Amino acid sequence: MSDNQVTPPSLSETDAPLERRRRTGGRGAERSRKSLGGSKYLNLVNSIEKTKVVDEETIEAIHQASLTVLEEIGMDVILPEARSLMKAAGAKVTPGTDRVRFDRGLIMEMIASTPSGFTMHARNPVRNVQIGGNNLVFAQIASAPFVADRDGGRRAGNQEDYRKLVKLAQSYDIIHTTGGYPVEPVDIHASVRHLDCLSDMVKLTDKVFHAYSLGKQRNLDALEIARIGRGITAEQLEQEPSLFTIINTSSPLRLDGPMLQGIMEMSARNQVVVVTPFTLAGAMAPVTIAGALVQQNAEALSGIAFTQMVRRGAPVMYGGFTSNVDMKTGAPAFGTPEYMKAVIAGGQLARRYGIPYRTSNTNASNTLDAQAAYESALSLWALTQGGGNFIMHAAGWSEGGLTASFEKFILDVDMLQMVAEFLKPLDVSADALGLDAIRDVGPGGHFFGTAHTLARYETAFYAPILSDWRNFETWTEAGRPTTYDHANRIFKEKLNEYERPPLDPAIEEELDAFVARRKIEGGVPTDF
Amino acid sequence: MSDNQVTPPSLSETDAPLERRRRTGGRGAERSRKSLGGSKYLNLVNSIEKTKVVDEETIEAIHQASLTVLEEIGMDVILPEARSLMKAAGAKVTPGTDRVRFDRGLIMEMIASTPSGFTMHARNPVRNVQIGGNNLVFAQIASAPFVADRDGGRRAGNQEDYRKLVKLAQSYDIIHTTGGYPVEPVDIHASVRHLDCLSDMVKLTDKVFHAYSLGKQRNLDALEIARIGRGITAEQLEQEPSLFTIINTSSPLRLDGPMLQGIMEMSARNQVVVVTPFTLAGAMAPVTIAGALVQQNAEALSGIAFTQMVRRGAPVMYGGFTSNVDMKTGAPAFGTPEYMKAVIAGGQLARRYGIPYRTSNTNASNTLDAQAAYESALSLWALTQGGGNFIMHAAGWSEGGLTASFEKFILDVDMLQMVAEFLKPLDVSADALGLDAIRDVGPGGHFFGTAHTLARYETAFYAPILSDWRNFETWTEAGRPTTYDHANRIFKEKLNEYERPPLDPAIEEELDAFVARRKIEGGVPTDF
Repeated sequence: MSDNQVTPPSLSETDAPLERRRRTGGRGAERSRKSLGGSKYLNLVNSIEKTKVVDEETIEAIHQASLTVLEEIGMDVILPEARSLMKAAGAKVTPGTDRVRFDRGLIMEMIASTPSGFTMHARNPVRNVQIGGNNLVFAQIASAPFVADRDGGRRAGNQEDYRKLVKLAQSYDIIHTTGGYPVEPVDIHASVRHLDCLSDMVKLTDKVFHAYSLGKQRNLDALEIARIGRGITAEQLEQEPSLFTIINTSSPLRLDGPMLQGIMEMSARNQVVVVTPFTLAGAMAPVTIAGALVQQNAEALSGIAFTQMVRRGAPVMYGGFTSNVDMKTGAPAFGTPEYMKAVIAGGQLARRYGIPYRTSNTNASNTLDAQAAYESALSLWALTQGGGNFIMHAAGWSEGGLTASFEKFILDVDMLQMVAEFLKPLDVSADALGLDAIRDVGPGGHFFGTAHTLARYETAFYAPILSDWRNFETWTEAGRPTTYDHANRIFKEKLNEYERPPLDPAIEEELDAFVARRKIEGGVPTDF
Repeated sequence: MSDNQVTPPSLSETDAPLERRRRTGGRGAERSRKSLGGSKYLNLVNSIEKTKVVDEETIEAIHQASLTVLEEIGMDVILPEARSLMKAAGAKVTPGTDRVRFDRGLIMEMIASTPSGFTMHARNPVRNVQIGGNNLVFAQIASAPFVADRDGGRRAGNQEDYRKLVKLAQSYDIIHTTGGYPVEPVDIHASVRHLDCLSDMVKLTDKVFHAYSLGKQRNLDALEIARIGRGITAEQLEQEPSLFTIINTSSPLRLDGPMLQGIMEMSARNQVVVVTPFTLAGAMAPVTIAGALVQQNAEALSGIAFTQMVRRGAPVMYGGFTSNVDMKTGAPAFGTPEYMKAVIAGGQLARRYGIPYRTSNTNASNTLDAQAAYESALSLWALTQGGGNFIMHAAGWSEGGLTASFEKFILDVDMLQMVAEFLKPLDVSADALGLDAIRDVGPGGHFFGTAHTLARYETAFYAPILSDWRNFETWTEAGRPTTYDHANRIFKEKLNEYERPPLDPAIEEELDAFVARRKIEGGVPTDF
């Protein structure tokens, strides 16, 4: 196991004792809880019965085939320390190579120790998110190299847009966590980018955030920033998972060094690891969805098992990202019927293991057109019916993930809210059944203005952000705005209304001091 | 019961004896069957377990409340002959009024005689559609007053556009039937419009079509045109439902004369009646979705019961069209979270009675933007998961049904095909699980060009009509086309490729003679 290298800051680094800061944080949280009292979109629960696209026998066949892959073919594990840990746990490491093979029994023993659910703790407790079971959590887009809005066009990621997108994530309760850097701000040097970006996450939002697993030191810095942001000790952080990291396998069948290091640092400290193979059927995985699922499952199980080798009981999620490619061009396709089936089957597999399920809201459109909407809507259909617990890229994903779109973010927020409203149980009280109202109105009347209607009309239905329901004439007089026009207007309005969530000045000071110190130390080494 | 007033044409009206025509029809059908051998989209089956939004007790509560409505409040039945039939069947008619009340027992006795499924017969047997069970049938948009494409803008319905839309319905196998007049061709005089329109249905398509219930004579003309089109006797037509009619109640709680006449003419001849209340919550129905469902159910059951009073065992569908209004403007809203819940609950109700379920693919957008796509996609989500059997307005519906859009038609066809592909069972054969392919490629390789991929790549994935998956640069060079651009191009290409389905010249001649005769007779009386 790796050592815990997080050094708690000495009291001299801040002007407030830790105890006071913790209490202050508590009061701040209380205030925030009150201000969010009316929110309908925290703590979403998806109680509908989950859809199946294959039967239990098939799930068992995929499961067994994936165990055969791990037993007979194995994974290439590109980190000596990880191979040592795996060997110590009972895996078969072929000497002089990266190849590691895992017996069925070993994998299943490790899977058995994963928790079926856990809480991710935000610096504002109201923003804590429950992972697993029927809980449904939406995370903003992560890791796009480009950013776009209609006014400024498509451009490389940068700090200004990064901050705007993080502010938007804070502005809507339906976005439960950020998902990573919504766009990669390449105007910040890579050696210190994570310091600036994560510091912004603490200051501009009060939600849970993500640590990139790009070398051990970045993980350690992220852990410290999360700890400071919450105003707690390293011990408490270890008791309360507060940070998550996405671990992508390098498909097919490879675990790269930084990813393995990420698991080692994060799982060792009881933080959340999300193991997600990126198995594009026909490219990095078999051209059949069933085959891609076998490979996805093998890769996911190997990574998940490794988290448990690092620390039994460490919180982990089963990630699915199987989609298909356009066989004419090799381009990845998203939000397709094949994607839908893979998402739902992935949910069946994750539930078979009792591990929370991560999936995504995807599309491949280059703009905010009907395609962007239908591919996303089909993704949402699948991930809702398939029982996704933690939804990455839930808002803002455009162009197959290459671009964070401001307008798409608003479109997605609207669609996510519609999903939440759909999942809200129908009021079926005697009063809602409305027999008296029907009696009062009688044949041939209408319900506008009745007491039953007046008592409810303001909150009866979801009021969408974007949908333009004006009649054709009024809409024409208004200049025939499209969804794209509305989204463009609204993201700017929302940015204008943005207010920073309360943050204890002592915490901010400690955070700034930490970032300044780490910058003076040179941040982290980079290859470029 | 009404008399069967269809007069079989005498042999002298055509140059071919009926027997020969029937055989010829048979051969023509055989030819068509062959030419459709490769179609994946005929006879769709939706085997996924249906989603529930309320529990069985709530369904029972809605059921009981709706029976109370029919027992205590009753319906206004605006046709003396219908009231007489209802009275004869045991309903309570209040003398001197239109009000009819129905005992619970009477309603349930009538519901018990409805068939749980049936076949609708097309003039090409390959196009027969199975209604009920897990079958899923898509019908084109019906009854829009306006028509639009991007080149010509929005305009009043007319014969030229009517014909184009009917040709498009014929061009895609995923459109199983037309749904009525896709647009109302107001340039044809109302007295003879049905003759021209239905004659076009026979000539331009070989699919099942719809008869408007706008007075007895129109129903009778439609029955005769359907009979001629299939080249069969009136007796055979009565054994084989070949025509359907949508019966909208006049919500709240009214059945109007033409609708009641439609049931009497169509059910008497064993043709298909689709009873669909239009219960907009907050307008013609209670503002609560539960209340709107109670009213929908009461109205639907009253109409369905009446079909069985006319003829026990007559084929009938339970129609649901509950949605909400925009409470700010009163404008109808579609494809909303509330619509989704109503669609799914409607399916639960229809299955409770064992009656095939009709619902719709809706949206309220004024153009082909993201809203058009997400509202439609949410509708498709609900109707698929909710077990819709017969989907009206499945393609082309725009602007809350006011406009038939050529581009939206193509968008919907693409989305319907995606639904069909989603419903196609996953291949989970040992070969599809792909263990050997995974073994061959091994860690770090790729699956492009492997034997497993090459054997499948051409048919592995759905190839969408509209989705533009080119990378940003290539797409930019191509002029940044949106889904709207692609749909605009494709509907015109498809119209250029259109070919009339084979039709026996003898049948065409008989049809023309019938239409000519009926026009000379003046068609039907009109009020204007």
